[in-house]
Amino acid sequence: MRKKVKIGSIGLGRLGYEHACNIASLIPEAELTALCDIDAEHLNKVADELGVSKRYTDYESLCKDPDLDAIAIVSPSALHVEQIECAMANGKHVFCEKPLGTDVPQCLAAEKVVAKYPELKFMLGFMRRFDDSYMDVKARIDRGEIGKVILMRSYTQDPVSTIESTLKFAPHSGGQFLDMCVHDLDLLRWFTGSPIKNLWAIGGVFAYDLYRKLNDGDNVAAMLQCENEAMGFIFAGRAAAHGCNVETEVIGTKGTLRIASVPAKNLVEIMSEHGVSRVCYEDFMARWHQAYINEIREFCRCIIENRQPDVTVQDGTAASEAAYRCKESFEKGRMLPLRD
Amino acid sequence: MRKKVKIGSIGLGRLGYEHACNIASLIPEAELTALCDIDAEHLNKVADELGVSKRYTDYESLCKDPDLDAIAIVSPSALHVEQIECAMANGKHVFCEKPLGTDVPQCLAAEKVVAKYPELKFMLGFMRRFDDSYMDVKARIDRGEIGKVILMRSYTQDPVSTIESTLKFAPHSGGQFLDMCVHDLDLLRWFTGSPIKNLWAIGGVFAYDLYRKLNDGDNVAAMLQCENEAMGFIFAGRAAAHGCNVETEVIGTKGTLRIASVPAKNLVEIMSEHGVSRVCYEDFMARWHQAYINEIREFCRCIIENRQPDVTVQDGTAASEAAYRCKESFEKGRMLPLRD
Amino acid sequence: MRKKVKIGSIGLGRLGYEHACNIASLIPEAELTALCDIDAEHLNKVADELGVSKRYTDYESLCKDPDLDAIAIVSPSALHVEQIECAMANGKHVFCEKPLGTDVPQCLAAEKVVAKYPELKFMLGFMRRFDDSYMDVKARIDRGEIGKVILMRSYTQDPVSTIESTLKFAPHSGGQFLDMCVHDLDLLRWFTGSPIKNLWAIGGVFAYDLYRKLNDGDNVAAMLQCENEAMGFIFAGRAAAHGCNVETEVIGTKGTLRIASVPAKNLVEIMSEHGVSRVCYEDFMARWHQAYINEIREFCRCIIENRQPDVTVQDGTAASEAAYRCKESFEKGRMLPLRD
Amino acid sequence: MRKKVKIGSIGLGRLGYEHACNIASLIPEAELTALCDIDAEHLNKVADELGVSKRYTDYESLCKDPDLDAIAIVSPSALHVEQIECAMANGKHVFCEKPLGTDVPQCLAAEKVVAKYPELKFMLGFMRRFDDSYMDVKARIDRGEIGKVILMRSYTQDPVSTIESTLKFAPHSGGQFLDMCVHDLDLLRWFTGSPIKNLWAIGGVFAYDLYRKLNDGDNVAAMLQCENEAMGFIFAGRAAAHGCNVETEVIGTKGTLRIASVPAKNLVEIMSEHGVSRVCYEDFMARWHQAYINEIREFCRCIIENRQPDVTVQDGTAASEAAYRCKESFEKGRMLPLRD
Repeated sequence: MRKKVKIGSIGLGRLGYEHACNIASLIPEAELTALCDIDAEHLNKVADELGVSKRYTDYESLCKDPDLDAIAIVSPSALHVEQIECAMANGKHVFCEKPLGTDVPQCLAAEKVVAKYPELKFMLGFMRRFDDSYMDVKARIDRGEIGKVILMRSYTQDPVSTIESTLKFAPHSGGQFLDMCVHDLDLLRWFTGSPIKNLWAIGGVFAYDLYRKLNDGDNVAAMLQCENEAMGFIFAGRAAAHGCNVETEVIGTKGTLRIASVPAKNLVEIMSEHGVSRVCYEDFMARWHQAYINEIREFCRCIIENRQPDVTVQDGTAASEAAYRCKESFEKGRMLPLRD
Repeated sequence: MRKKVKIGSIGLGRLGYEHACNIASLIPEAELTALCDIDAEHLNKVADELGVSKRYTDYESLCKDPDLDAIAIVSPSALHVEQIECAMANGKHVFCEKPLGTDVPQCLAAEKVVAKYPELKFMLGFMRRFDDSYMDVKARIDRGEIGKVILMRSYTQDPVSTIESTLKFAPHSGGQFLDMCVHDLDLLRWFTGSPIKNLWAIGGVFAYDLYRKLNDGDNVAAMLQCENEAMGFIFAGRAAAHGCNVETEVIGTKGTLRIASVPAKNLVEIMSEHGVSRVCYEDFMARWHQAYINEIREFCRCIIENRQPDVTVQDGTAASEAAYRCKESFEKGRMLPLRD
Repeated sequence: MRKKVKIGSIGLGRLGYEHACNIASLIPEAELTALCDIDAEHLNKVADELGVSKRYTDYESLCKDPDLDAIAIVSPSALHVEQIECAMANGKHVFCEKPLGTDVPQCLAAEKVVAKYPELKFMLGFMRRFDDSYMDVKARIDRGEIGKVILMRSYTQDPVSTIESTLKFAPHSGGQFLDMCVHDLDLLRWFTGSPIKNLWAIGGVFAYDLYRKLNDGDNVAAMLQCENEAMGFIFAGRAAAHGCNVETEVIGTKGTLRIASVPAKNLVEIMSEHGVSRVCYEDFMARWHQAYINEIREFCRCIIENRQPDVTVQDGTAASEAAYRCKESFEKGRMLPLRD
Repeated sequence: MRKKVKIGSIGLGRLGYEHACNIASLIPEAELTALCDIDAEHLNKVADELGVSKRYTDYESLCKDPDLDAIAIVSPSALHVEQIECAMANGKHVFCEKPLGTDVPQCLAAEKVVAKYPELKFMLGFMRRFDDSYMDVKARIDRGEIGKVILMRSYTQDPVSTIESTLKFAPHSGGQFLDMCVHDLDLLRWFTGSPIKNLWAIGGVFAYDLYRKLNDGDNVAAMLQCENEAMGFIFAGRAAAHGCNVETEVIGTKGTLRIASVPAKNLVEIMSEHGVSRVCYEDFMARWHQAYINEIREFCRCIIENRQPDVTVQDGTAASEAAYRCKESFEKGRMLPLRD
């Protein structure tokens, strides 16, 4: 029989609930053994629904539960480091949602923790890397199909349909660069295989004045120069009319690969008075549903097969560092090296 | 906690194994409680892998197992009717793979069996109806988005990459109309909401002489006229260069809907010396993976929520009847009414 | 200097005017030397606009004009045969718009006329054959890129935006099979290289009752079996929501080619609340603009280079014969051989 | 009769020949009255082919020809200013190919010349503005369909199939920013309606060492910030595998418009072992064929209708200025304001 990794999951917000459901029912190698949330009522409701008997309102008790093999951390970012530490100190493998921390020192602290437990697996939730299309592109690049990587372009646009919750969340999001671009910045390093050297970030407030008060833009962009001369361009916006638009392009010396140039949610074409149309993913949950499953599945397989995940704690630091530097560049209005 | 339907599954061939894996791990509402196959060694291997303790080499014993709520029948078509009967006689809900039987009398016999147990759920495995894109199109038609249905066109092409196994299977397949077109014929009834009135089937042997010996074509087509004047055109082939090509179009008075005009397996576009290309689904397993999950899930929900599935035993008869009549038309070389 | 073919053009209706403009200004090898129309006022207006000094209200005088090398016939179909005869008797090369005649005997009469003047060039206006995409597909088939042709599918749908003029024209159009399908039938012979053997045509009145009175359908279809076993499916409709939809597909043993699956009128994609959309050709004039130019250009080159056009008078007869037979099949409600 | 503008054309290189052919035969409002080239043999050959009797080997004589209404300048860039001056001093309207000059002072000199003759028409050859797709997008933006412009992205990639001539031309091209990006920079101003404020250009030598010697990259990019906060990203490369790839995207607050995301040269889709593919434009001549015609046509109409073209001499200066500044930024390795 397939070995199952017994997982306790911390945090039952929107994404935490998604992960809990996936672990409970959609991942052959996992078993949802325990749940943890500070809201006892919500905890019990979800645990009842998913048939989980072990329930905790404090993460430390969860981490000490001897029945658990691994902990999934889907809590507010500020708590990530201490929860990683607590889980690993108790001998648990850790899956942690991005971002690693709310600033670079936190990320570096996480790195130290992880380094202390080399026998444990640690994986960061850059789920895009586990989407079928992104994996396909990565494999093609690694096989040399497009030659040397010249440019990566990556867009992250939320749909306008969710703009109200987006605006509500804005003050707590960390800003566009931290909240959205961090994924694109991770992809840049992943696809080019190179550290970032210089960057310049710009943006503006085109529709939602709130972002001006937050010292942010509602639409922002950055151009990045890698150590190996490869180039990066990233763009993030909060209100795409056609849906959740996350697309990535990698231009190489021998060809180009594109992901989701048209983020069609299914294979339907509609011929109507609007011409020929494809309907797009309505939100990030729909877009990344399978990737969220795939990443936890890969995490479990790493544990079962005793190998380290490809997404490392250092990847988390690097993406966060670049995102912060973009934010600084945007605020200062000038190009910056990655580090002074 | 979510109620789970305890399923025993009969048949562990390629598709039987797929269903078993899905029931075991990917359907929150299901539990794979028992397995049945005449090959004990293979049965034990799969049961070990999936962690199923109850194992049967004869379906009658399985059907009598009091722990089971439902039976999934994924055995050779000739056995379907008797297994349906045995399962229902033992009070089990039944999911049965298509086709319902190997001829129309068998289908009618199955109808009678099902009619005897109105309190039990019966569902036939027309999985296309559970694919996201097909469901989307059906919902749009039902909402009146394209007005009155004028024409349905549907293609079913196997990929050339699997031609060897296709040829090996050919003598036992029942022929193109029964094996492939039966899905398209079901869709015609589903999308037009009308019975078929007249039909003419043609075809030829363009590449694989074997089919001539089988009194079949390697590529066949049929045009159908529905009772309500709606038109159907179906085409089936065994060796598409670009992959598993199943596409369906519904033209209405106010618009047209298409499914999988380009059966792209992911969201990647490749720019190369071949132009701009999309890579297609490699085989039917990849194409219908989620649909196979969705249909069993819907079957379980019907049991839990005590409602009958939309796909009925009569749908199975109707599709088989039309497929046989296409075969007859092809052989006789002339147009035929659905029934004499 | 490039030799120019001096052309006199008969008929200044919508398409006649288009041809006249093209000949006057957009075809390097042509010179619009004379115009003919029974409406003297309209004739003078167009001739003034295009700077043509020679003007005729009767075609016989035009045909006798010694300055002319060739005659373009864009008059009502019933006049084609006599005008072809008159032009050729006067030693003029002839380009004639489709259809060749209003019935098969007229077509056969035209064949006889053309046969009498083998030194003169005759070309029929099947303009689709001169569209870049159709030429590309034909060249690929001829190079063997898709192997043996199995099936051709071809659709002709007028846009709903022009439905009023469509309905006005309906009683004089000859019906869907003659007016629309004749192009698709020509393509079937062109792409398969085979005569048609059997056919069955169906259809219905789904939106516009007028067609019932005309003993026609507003949407019709036909399936055709070729002498070489290749299959054809054609569909014609009068009111596509998304624009002028003419698409053609050729499925071969080694690959498939499609033309205008999405009849996008330019390279613009629109991301909006309707998803990602392409805007389609608004009418046949826009769709075939370049093809109309190309065909006259090829006609001129044939004259200059002294070779016969690929589109022959026999092609005209064959397409008309098949179209009439489809009409007969539709009316009789049964499959028919091409000829009794 | 349509009035025709009598044009004398200077320069019969590849693009000069294209313009001459277009003026001679494909533009109803134009007449190719005279040709000028320093290579008398080539001049006579082309003039014979196009049936042009007036031939000049020095542009001054051409400019003095009283039969001419207008001069088309398609000569080496360094000669543009003096030829513009000579033509206008002789009372001729001027169409001039891009770039306006080989440096900004030349551009400013050209501006002064043009300002002296306000009654004459002057138009610069930014042909992209006359491509159907670009015109469509511009009209949609002007109608407010996508709200406020946030970002314009524009790519210019030559096809690898022409790399040999590209490399030969490289030392005389002015570099990627001047030769290629100047079009994208013009589009940025056109689509955003805003001057450029800051920019940063980067690039590298990924495949062709020659460019290192030229102090250039074979692939370069620049990000630009407009005065109105709109953002620009441009990319230029010399060796795209899939053909001539010029694509442009405009993201607005209410929608996004894309041109040639897939630069398909016709409406054919190819299903083969490479998946489903579209074939792309093979080179810039094929891509812009109709735009080259359209721009001269518009030039003629401006003369006939006595209005100034939308593309002004100032547009030429602005694009060149930005291109030079990009080159400077690339060489200095830092962000720069448009002007110090």
